[in-house]
Amino acid sequence: MTYQHLTTGEHASASYAPAPRVVGIAGGVGGAKLAHGLQTILPPGALSVVVNTADDFKLWSLYISPDLDTVMYTLAGLANRVQGWGLEDETWHASDMLRRYGQDVWFRLGDLDIATHVLRTHLLQQGSTISQVTAELAHSLEVPSHILPMCNEQISTMVQTPDGLLDFQEYFVHRHHSDRVLGVSFRTQGTPRITNEVSRALHKATAIVFCPSNPIVSIGPILRVSGIKEAISASGAPKVAVSPIVGGTALKGPAADMLKTLGHEVSPVGVARQYQGIIDGMVIDREDEHLAPRIRELGMEVEVTNTIMKSDDDRALLASSVLVFCNRLTQQRRNES
Amino acid sequence: MTYQHLTTGEHASASYAPAPRVVGIAGGVGGAKLAHGLQTILPPGALSVVVNTADDFKLWSLYISPDLDTVMYTLAGLANRVQGWGLEDETWHASDMLRRYGQDVWFRLGDLDIATHVLRTHLLQQGSTISQVTAELAHSLEVPSHILPMCNEQISTMVQTPDGLLDFQEYFVHRHHSDRVLGVSFRTQGTPRITNEVSRALHKATAIVFCPSNPIVSIGPILRVSGIKEAISASGAPKVAVSPIVGGTALKGPAADMLKTLGHEVSPVGVARQYQGIIDGMVIDREDEHLAPRIRELGMEVEVTNTIMKSDDDRALLASSVLVFCNRLTQQRRNES
Repeated sequence: MTYQHLTTGEHASASYAPAPRVVGIAGGVGGAKLAHGLQTILPPGALSVVVNTADDFKLWSLYISPDLDTVMYTLAGLANRVQGWGLEDETWHASDMLRRYGQDVWFRLGDLDIATHVLRTHLLQQGSTISQVTAELAHSLEVPSHILPMCNEQISTMVQTPDGLLDFQEYFVHRHHSDRVLGVSFRTQGTPRITNEVSRALHKATAIVFCPSNPIVSIGPILRVSGIKEAISASGAPKVAVSPIVGGTALKGPAADMLKTLGHEVSPVGVARQYQGIIDGMVIDREDEHLAPRIRELGMEVEVTNTIMKSDDDRALLASSVLVFCNRLTQQRRNES
Repeated sequence: MTYQHLTTGEHASASYAPAPRVVGIAGGVGGAKLAHGLQTILPPGALSVVVNTADDFKLWSLYISPDLDTVMYTLAGLANRVQGWGLEDETWHASDMLRRYGQDVWFRLGDLDIATHVLRTHLLQQGSTISQVTAELAHSLEVPSHILPMCNEQISTMVQTPDGLLDFQEYFVHRHHSDRVLGVSFRTQGTPRITNEVSRALHKATAIVFCPSNPIVSIGPILRVSGIKEAISASGAPKVAVSPIVGGTALKGPAADMLKTLGHEVSPVGVARQYQGIIDGMVIDREDEHLAPRIRELGMEVEVTNTIMKSDDDRALLASSVLVFCNRLTQQRRNES
């Protein structure tokens, strides 16, 4: 495939360039798709994905980490292609039985998926950190990338609505993100701080990619973890973000509504403003090409390409565009100095 | 059906007799079958089953109670008819996924079954007792009988083998009860004592039935719970046991091997000796009729009938024989006094 030759070729021919070490910063479905594209075109082990855990919650005392699961299943090639989350060929017998026990099954646990929750909960109860557990599970599923939870402490996203303050999953899944969002806040336990794994990955990064995830509730919590923004800032690697907003709407989830009700512009410009001072460039969809000048006014470079990922090829092609853009930024910086 | 008319008729015509309140003392599969037969012929709510919990164990931090599950599924009409344990129409996707995570799945968790373990574990973690959890689960499954765990504290059956001391499920399931049993012991946490529910059931009992379960590792632990033997002894109800040994072998499980290696006779006589001083009568299979005189020598009455339960009718017919036997013992006692 063209994109593979392109990227591999670039790395191979540029003998002065270090081996690529890409860090993705990601939430759930959209982030996982781009991460999968990056994994496809990079050598094994070259990708680390820092994943949001502020949506994590407990259900029937099982520790559920929706974004870690989505990223892991996607990078393992096991994700359900139609819905984006959950597993392919999933069945729902355990949920049926819970319903038979009179339980309100508002978050459906697939039979394959529940094994992940049971094992993760068990390992956490035995004293492992979420970083250790994630590494162990991903290793078993032969994921060739490093999946790095943003921290080992607990940050919980809370959504302020006209009906009061809701846990994120309560707002997102149980109430189908239909409430008006008046504000987003974060409840922390302990002092969430950068892990050794995230610190090392960012330190060695040759490119840092903010995946097309919700900037407020997916990427936002990651940037609140003590030490992560500083480590990104200290990195000499180019930092680019892919807009999750295309043509004025979010491809998935409540990002558009959230930006709007929180007073932000629902466009790649609004997204770029969220990352101002942190990133060097934005990747936007062709549909939003006319907005490029306004993003450049914010002091960022812009790459225009197809950002909608329907197939595996779409994922890899977008990943390739992103890395070529990063290489261009690196080259520019070299030429300037 | 004949057995229903028989029993209902007896209770209805004997206007001086109290409403029947039968207490079954049971382990897993064999005990559950007779309990089901008793439930079939008794009015709703008239049966209480005191169930062994000394086989309970934790797997992936899930609290698993094999005998409670077997009794509950059987009395709910949901049990797998072929294997006796587990649920009808069960699937095994969660176990497959656990195996994919590199786990040694020696105790297969069905997808329906795992919902029971998850919910029970959750309710226990929230502070409910095993008695409360069991009542709640059984109520949801519309079980018309009372399923009573033998105690709320932990008693764990340990099996001494040439390879050392093993947890019961390790010996029974993981190693397929193939080790020679040198001894059986019980590890307790706290002081296991009779619950209010078991105490009340035994106090009001009009018949106490020791189901055809392993006398050493199923009924044995129940009798070790402080207050249970005393409450049985204090009851004026007839107490009878159905032999789990027929023709010198156990119908299921390691009862025969265990009795033998522990120096007991592998026959209804050996079983009767385990219960000497506790019960008034033994129900034995026609195949063992020749042993009746030796059991009578122990000071017990004997009822000879078909004890092998292959169908629902077999269960109900045996239950009916057991209750008729109990009524006869009650009548005899009245005539003697």
